[in-house]
Amino acid sequence: MKTELSQKLGIEHAIFGFTPFPAVAAALTRAGGFGVLGAVRYTAPDDLARDLDWMQDHTDGLPYGLDVVMPAKRVEGVSETDVEAMIPEGHREFVRATLAKHGVPELAEGEASGWRITGWMEQVARGQLDVAFDYPVKLLANALGSPPADVVARAHDHDVLVAALAGSARHARHHAEAGLDIVVAQGYEAGGHTGEIASMVLTPEVVDAVSPLPVLAAGGIGSGEQIAAGLALGAQGVWLGSIWLTTTEAELHSRALTAKLLAAGSGDTVRSRALTGKPARQLRTRWTDAWDDPDGPGTLPMPLQGLLVAEAVSRIQKYEVEPLLGTPVGQIVGRMNSERSVQQVFDELTRGFEKTVDRVNRIAGRSAS
Amino acid sequence: MKTELSQKLGIEHAIFGFTPFPAVAAALTRAGGFGVLGAVRYTAPDDLARDLDWMQDHTDGLPYGLDVVMPAKRVEGVSETDVEAMIPEGHREFVRATLAKHGVPELAEGEASGWRITGWMEQVARGQLDVAFDYPVKLLANALGSPPADVVARAHDHDVLVAALAGSARHARHHAEAGLDIVVAQGYEAGGHTGEIASMVLTPEVVDAVSPLPVLAAGGIGSGEQIAAGLALGAQGVWLGSIWLTTTEAELHSRALTAKLLAAGSGDTVRSRALTGKPARQLRTRWTDAWDDPDGPGTLPMPLQGLLVAEAVSRIQKYEVEPLLGTPVGQIVGRMNSERSVQQVFDELTRGFEKTVDRVNRIAGRSAS
Repeated sequence: MKTELSQKLGIEHAIFGFTPFPAVAAALTRAGGFGVLGAVRYTAPDDLARDLDWMQDHTDGLPYGLDVVMPAKRVEGVSETDVEAMIPEGHREFVRATLAKHGVPELAEGEASGWRITGWMEQVARGQLDVAFDYPVKLLANALGSPPADVVARAHDHDVLVAALAGSARHARHHAEAGLDIVVAQGYEAGGHTGEIASMVLTPEVVDAVSPLPVLAAGGIGSGEQIAAGLALGAQGVWLGSIWLTTTEAELHSRALTAKLLAAGSGDTVRSRALTGKPARQLRTRWTDAWDDPDGPGTLPMPLQGLLVAEAVSRIQKYEVEPLLGTPVGQIVGRMNSERSVQQVFDELTRGFEKTVDRVNRIAGRSAS
Repeated sequence: MKTELSQKLGIEHAIFGFTPFPAVAAALTRAGGFGVLGAVRYTAPDDLARDLDWMQDHTDGLPYGLDVVMPAKRVEGVSETDVEAMIPEGHREFVRATLAKHGVPELAEGEASGWRITGWMEQVARGQLDVAFDYPVKLLANALGSPPADVVARAHDHDVLVAALAGSARHARHHAEAGLDIVVAQGYEAGGHTGEIASMVLTPEVVDAVSPLPVLAAGGIGSGEQIAAGLALGAQGVWLGSIWLTTTEAELHSRALTAKLLAAGSGDTVRSRALTGKPARQLRTRWTDAWDDPDGPGTLPMPLQGLLVAEAVSRIQKYEVEPLLGTPVGQIVGRMNSERSVQQVFDELTRGFEKTVDRVNRIAGRSAS
């Protein structure tokens, strides 16, 4: 599965895998794809350095990338404490009441919340970059708009390609104007932050909008058929995130959450502002229902919502409170029905792609080749 | 573009086109595809007979189909007057106020509303079938669930294949159990009634759910790339509706509406209950905004909403009141940017498909064939 972009990056298959877990990212790269490690959970630069050291030791010199969350708009000198102060008391009370209603225990004294909003702030993302540029990272991806110009320039100085997600042709054009190298067209069906245009329509629109910049198709892809579809739509590769959540290498640390993912159907996700304040596709739970309830207080804008719910989400995850337990995931969750290794999933993707090419050739009346 | 299904129907290309306009349906069939005429606007059987006569004379003996709207649940002995009586006065007042706000003129005395709810009632659909079975219609499609068992049996007695739209694997399995021959997997991005699962995810799910029944991919398809994607996802053909609305053969009878469609982007549609009471994708307008406004009265369930707004929609269309003027259409509206003949669009689809197969073969490392 070779495209201009895959050849530029020196990878065997134009399959890009986003994951918060180093073991998954490394396995993806070793399998012949391109692992992209999500950095948002690393609030301490040393933790990121430790995991990038590990990646170095487990990727056989093959290329991999890093995904940061860096808002394009800089908010100067605003601390987490300043943001905390902007949260209305009524919303805090709603969090307490919702957790109490479902019997969610408190964290132990001094126990830190695992999910921190700080990873979503530019200062933290810049600290991550200071670490990342010491490693042979080949791609820097940004989930929230184009990165600031100085970051793009710094990446290019290090021969690092810069990618960003786009939910519309307008976003994509903005990325092209900002000098980015790759646009990830993130369809409505994708997990995490996503817009309203589905991949079938979005991918070719973005390809047309930024050509000749390479586009990766993201959203709804978890099989070889879907990879072939994404490439047919004009992408130079595919970007998969959800499908790795149920691999044996994924460190979800929650059997209950894994079980929920394995059992969920494609209709069991919702595009909700509950997690961050911006629409993000995730498992639909009693927690998302509470925030999406027209009779509730509703969500706060980013970054307030993330800060408001950070500790609550940690408590729900730690105590595995089933009705509230969720995670960002795309509609492809309906096809995540067994736990397998990254290599097994990857082999199935490439085999499925080859079979699909055979099938489409038969439909087109082309001889087997 | 040959599949088992296209060969069974004796068509050159597995491209199915749904349209309310006989001239479009006939042109599609003549081009080597399969035209499916929407029957919902024919309230008088004679009108349908007249247009099917015309179809006969303009399809060179090639096959075509008919699409009816027949709810699976039968409501015995309920007339339009009975349904009218169930509409709250507050909703009628909201219609009057919204029309008045935008200066929509009244219809002339005795002038009939063009858009009638009656076409959505089973009695009317059965009258349409009585007409249709006198013609060599090869496919009967139903937009609302599986048709009643006696209708399926009657179609099969006439060697007519029966298809129905499905927005989920569950719907699709229901169609298979009802003895249907074809399932149209209608993705979130599609125009008209649609569910929340996007085509990229829905198509393969439906294929798996009903295999070996043939599946048509619908939603988001308006180019050769998208046709290749739909077929890659396992479909035996593609079902396109929106793309024909801006062909020269389409009889929209409103330059203002055609202009709106040509100008609209993929983000200018909304999945709203404004038209029928069930979620249907359509152009977003001040009219849909009024119904989707949380501070408004909200929509009524099907069939009440359709009956409530029928005359209003006719008035908006007749007087081309631009801010309110809309139509069911999918996200593909963003690519409908020029008026061309059905044949021109069709040629572009087939040429684009061939080019896409070439491109995917290059990515797969297959030699040109």
